[in-house]
Amino acid sequence: MQQIHDTSIRTFASDNYAGVHPAVLAAIATANEGHVVSYGLDPYTARLQEVVRGHLGPQAEAFPVFNGTGANVLALQSSLPRWGAVICATGAHINVDEGGAPERVGGLKLLAVPTPDGKLTPELVDREAWGFGDEHRAQPGIVSITQSTEFGTLYSVDEIRALADHAHDKGMLLHVDGARIANAAAALDLPLGAFLTDAGVDILSLGGTKDGALGAEAVVTLSERAGEGLTYLRKLDMQLASKMRFLSAQLLALYDGDVWLSNARHANAMAARLRAALEGVDGVDFVQPTQSNGVFAHLPAGVADRVRESFMFYDWNGESGEVRWMCSWDTTESDVDAFAAAVRAAVAAA
Amino acid sequence: MQQIHDTSIRTFASDNYAGVHPAVLAAIATANEGHVVSYGLDPYTARLQEVVRGHLGPQAEAFPVFNGTGANVLALQSSLPRWGAVICATGAHINVDEGGAPERVGGLKLLAVPTPDGKLTPELVDREAWGFGDEHRAQPGIVSITQSTEFGTLYSVDEIRALADHAHDKGMLLHVDGARIANAAAALDLPLGAFLTDAGVDILSLGGTKDGALGAEAVVTLSERAGEGLTYLRKLDMQLASKMRFLSAQLLALYDGDVWLSNARHANAMAARLRAALEGVDGVDFVQPTQSNGVFAHLPAGVADRVRESFMFYDWNGESGEVRWMCSWDTTESDVDAFAAAVRAAVAAA
Amino acid sequence: MQQIHDTSIRTFASDNYAGVHPAVLAAIATANEGHVVSYGLDPYTARLQEVVRGHLGPQAEAFPVFNGTGANVLALQSSLPRWGAVICATGAHINVDEGGAPERVGGLKLLAVPTPDGKLTPELVDREAWGFGDEHRAQPGIVSITQSTEFGTLYSVDEIRALADHAHDKGMLLHVDGARIANAAAALDLPLGAFLTDAGVDILSLGGTKDGALGAEAVVTLSERAGEGLTYLRKLDMQLASKMRFLSAQLLALYDGDVWLSNARHANAMAARLRAALEGVDGVDFVQPTQSNGVFAHLPAGVADRVRESFMFYDWNGESGEVRWMCSWDTTESDVDAFAAAVRAAVAAA
Amino acid sequence: MQQIHDTSIRTFASDNYAGVHPAVLAAIATANEGHVVSYGLDPYTARLQEVVRGHLGPQAEAFPVFNGTGANVLALQSSLPRWGAVICATGAHINVDEGGAPERVGGLKLLAVPTPDGKLTPELVDREAWGFGDEHRAQPGIVSITQSTEFGTLYSVDEIRALADHAHDKGMLLHVDGARIANAAAALDLPLGAFLTDAGVDILSLGGTKDGALGAEAVVTLSERAGEGLTYLRKLDMQLASKMRFLSAQLLALYDGDVWLSNARHANAMAARLRAALEGVDGVDFVQPTQSNGVFAHLPAGVADRVRESFMFYDWNGESGEVRWMCSWDTTESDVDAFAAAVRAAVAAA
Repeated sequence: MQQIHDTSIRTFASDNYAGVHPAVLAAIATANEGHVVSYGLDPYTARLQEVVRGHLGPQAEAFPVFNGTGANVLALQSSLPRWGAVICATGAHINVDEGGAPERVGGLKLLAVPTPDGKLTPELVDREAWGFGDEHRAQPGIVSITQSTEFGTLYSVDEIRALADHAHDKGMLLHVDGARIANAAAALDLPLGAFLTDAGVDILSLGGTKDGALGAEAVVTLSERAGEGLTYLRKLDMQLASKMRFLSAQLLALYDGDVWLSNARHANAMAARLRAALEGVDGVDFVQPTQSNGVFAHLPAGVADRVRESFMFYDWNGESGEVRWMCSWDTTESDVDAFAAAVRAAVAAA
Repeated sequence: MQQIHDTSIRTFASDNYAGVHPAVLAAIATANEGHVVSYGLDPYTARLQEVVRGHLGPQAEAFPVFNGTGANVLALQSSLPRWGAVICATGAHINVDEGGAPERVGGLKLLAVPTPDGKLTPELVDREAWGFGDEHRAQPGIVSITQSTEFGTLYSVDEIRALADHAHDKGMLLHVDGARIANAAAALDLPLGAFLTDAGVDILSLGGTKDGALGAEAVVTLSERAGEGLTYLRKLDMQLASKMRFLSAQLLALYDGDVWLSNARHANAMAARLRAALEGVDGVDFVQPTQSNGVFAHLPAGVADRVRESFMFYDWNGESGEVRWMCSWDTTESDVDAFAAAVRAAVAAA
Repeated sequence: MQQIHDTSIRTFASDNYAGVHPAVLAAIATANEGHVVSYGLDPYTARLQEVVRGHLGPQAEAFPVFNGTGANVLALQSSLPRWGAVICATGAHINVDEGGAPERVGGLKLLAVPTPDGKLTPELVDREAWGFGDEHRAQPGIVSITQSTEFGTLYSVDEIRALADHAHDKGMLLHVDGARIANAAAALDLPLGAFLTDAGVDILSLGGTKDGALGAEAVVTLSERAGEGLTYLRKLDMQLASKMRFLSAQLLALYDGDVWLSNARHANAMAARLRAALEGVDGVDFVQPTQSNGVFAHLPAGVADRVRESFMFYDWNGESGEVRWMCSWDTTESDVDAFAAAVRAAVAAA
Repeated sequence: MQQIHDTSIRTFASDNYAGVHPAVLAAIATANEGHVVSYGLDPYTARLQEVVRGHLGPQAEAFPVFNGTGANVLALQSSLPRWGAVICATGAHINVDEGGAPERVGGLKLLAVPTPDGKLTPELVDREAWGFGDEHRAQPGIVSITQSTEFGTLYSVDEIRALADHAHDKGMLLHVDGARIANAAAALDLPLGAFLTDAGVDILSLGGTKDGALGAEAVVTLSERAGEGLTYLRKLDMQLASKMRFLSAQLLALYDGDVWLSNARHANAMAARLRAALEGVDGVDFVQPTQSNGVFAHLPAGVADRVRESFMFYDWNGESGEVRWMCSWDTTESDVDAFAAAVRAAVAAA
């Protein structure tokens, strides 16, 4: 196959626009050759359990899947009865970016609560945590938060613990959509277990793809209350890889060592660099704290489109003029500097 | 990541036990580097359309997905109304090996017809092709066949055309589960279009994984009647890859050139070699013609387990003593010879 | 069977606490005797078509079902593709009182918009009417409003027409949950067609149970765009009655004549009487206009429970102290007067 | 409402063509008047529990629903995990007459086994009772039988007990579709508990509609293993009646006393009379034993249509010439005699 893409293009559109980290490619090649049992009974998937337990404690169990939507739906569905509902932020990926899969494939109702910054609190949870025992209401059974959030913000350990305690007090579980969990760990400068298992999280969607994998995530159960029937549900929900060794190898390339963390630290640093470069520029109003690898800003009319002549990125809210700039594991300092210059120039020309 | 599997192990268990063809690994690396648009708006997915059209005609459109169950459910669901049903063979992968995904995720009813060899005929289809317009009956709307079948058998062009004509006459469509479509093309010695598009097939699950990919399949629409809303359904059914360039690259590595075919020819040849090596051996009764890459045999009691001390393979029917031996793109002549010797020895010792 | 309930109990809890209007009981008896074809091919279901067309125009078609949830899910599901979403008010019955049936049985995503009074407007619709063509977003395809609303409020003809025009302009349909459509007609003093068909509504859940039926509703299609496959979906969603003559007879008892309207007028009048009786009472704050058969009020702490010693009714919002008082076709003037007296006494004692 | 059906028409098409028994109409009127709590918290639904426990033992609990499909789907769904499958006869109502509701609404896979007479045996169950623990296979978790069967045949107590023991030995449950359970009790001349609870049945769809109700069935749990979350699932699956007193009253009219049994005895007697009247008539070949209220016969070509000029009934198998004649609680001796005469005349004229 010929290379037919322009490798010089740089974007701030999504951490999904980036490619695969060399360590991941190498791991795929290492896991290749010869015959191994399919569907997860292979040495790499077994090793992944050890690695995940190293990060998240001895009771953790990892179920590799293809993508983030799959991880989220499986995590939630396996932790709820058929009549269960999920309390989440209105801006949660499960609510706005998964095409209705939680509802239609998972059979779940989402009880979404508006938030200013993508973060739930016990008080916000309580807006939907009611009606227990009432057959007319889909039963709230799990709270789902995203760490780091879709708005680039971060939950502190205390905030997560407060949500876990609150959920448990009400007989609910706590799920973390960790598509960018590495960015959160890097930003918090804490081991994964410290703000997940130890904070009371019950089940995790462990991200890989946005952090340098080709395409690999995992559902990780952290408590016995969560994840019933995951083996069956993963198959049923079409997320069971036949050649699973290659999913596990990708996750090992990241998490058995520190690639996961250095990739995330780098992406976060690039976001911080971008923010610093534009902080104080007249017309560029930052609308969220920059706590991980995304920068959210408001631009004057017309500016975004002018910048997009050189660099792709997405409107976050087309009406309000809010934009999202994502940095990834492969964003370079010169990418950032060139982009910041382009923004400054466009603002100046506005 | 360290290599921790024993690369010397050889099996006849499944074409999923084999690894990734070098051309596929190379293509993944080639597609890497730099930023490309995610979710399929990339040059490799665009190129895949051209390649698929080269094989299957100008109206073909390909939708890469993660796995075979995903491809089948999407193909069927997108070609049926909510009240639709699928006529298939009792032994079809969708009926026995997909954990109920067609029913629960697809919302479809399967109308399964017993067959001796995994092959439907117009007569067999008619056992379930009735009740049109009756609201009490899930409406038969598509016939699904597997080529080559789960039993290693093959539909001829005429047989497929007869099924397509019959289905169309009754207002139904024809779907082909082509997880091993390359093996069929190799066995028929025909271009893909000759026994798919030209024979009247409406929608195809195009296989990649069993033919040397890491994990990539595609739904391919061949007629306008099939595949409504595939873009939405692929997302909804959690089969949309964010870094899709790498799914498309895998399929290009196989289908843009002849790797798909040479891999399949080799696997078929190894199955033929195995059959030839054991043909006439007392106690080894072949229960299906060997027309692609699988050999189905009946063994005396105890023999299978003895052979399994050296080589993994699966019982096909534990009760009857029937076994399945699968050859893959990386099965070698010496694998086959050693295996045949092991079978002969085990039979002799029985 | 012995009568074992206390027929002297009067409540303001729900129009579902009331029994069956004598004309409905009589119609059931009239439809009894002898054999008629089941599943809707009977003279009463045929006659129902004529009656519904008299009310709603020559293109209307009625599909009797068992209950309101069934009517709503069928109406919405039959008017949307599998990837469709429904824009509704946060307080809509489909969002808060149907146990997740629209999501799990219908496979639909609800895009709920907060409203002060249960009423959508084109502007409120636009908060969720976006992302058309984006596969990541469940596709908004229908707007669902309730008339009269769950808050006892009413859409004017112009308001409905504006919503219909707006929905159609965006390629969407308009559904009306008409569990209390008779109360709306009575309040508007308009024929049903005037504020439904003529205002551009595409599909209707026609209420019967709350207006004096034993248990009968109907999905009514008003435009050709809506209601695909309703016959199949009604069966599939378990809403097809075998002895359908008795569902149709109930609806005929109401709608073939003016029982539907006189019942609703009476219930509305009782609500108006209740409001008038308590208007100006210190401590009783009405939180919604009283436009149909429900009265929504805020009471001082403790008052609601004191009144409930004599009359059942529901908290509408336990936290804020808001209560709902529903009048039904069989609420009497003396019921209202006794209840108002009880409220006044409880407020005075507070 | 005017009576617009021809009350003189008599049919042998379905027990659903019959109307409502006078005792049922009376019970509805008795339960009417005044206000009672909706959704099942009423005295009649409470009384129904006592009555059902009188028939089926102290651990039985009844959940009234609208129709037989609803009862079956709820019973099965509430007794299986999301990945569960149902072993049933190919001819089971759930497999052929419920429009795919068990699959799409229940999310269940049906594992159907061909039978000559509609009856499963432990041996037939074992054709599908395998693959436990294999994630690729929807997990068999419940056996569903119909008593009396769709073919008019009957399970003996010993046959049911053998199926229950066999199911339990394999970790499965036993469900009985009892749409015609009264006919079975009448035919066996046994109390319901004797061939249900005492025989090891776990969950029952208790029929009402075919035995003289207007429209009422119930899911009845008989063991603690079955029926998880039925309250929530009944709402979720749109089978929760608001004015439930009227469903319960119908069931009380039948089961609180002996109307259920006398109706069924009569229907069975009419079927026996019909069989006796035609036994030995040349050209009329009975294809099933007549053990309840249905008679299955094979007729010479053209005969069925000739008889249908006077009496409606259904082909059971259009191709083979098999017909079904159903007797109901209101079939009279003169109906039977006239029908038998019509058949004899048509056969003689053939």
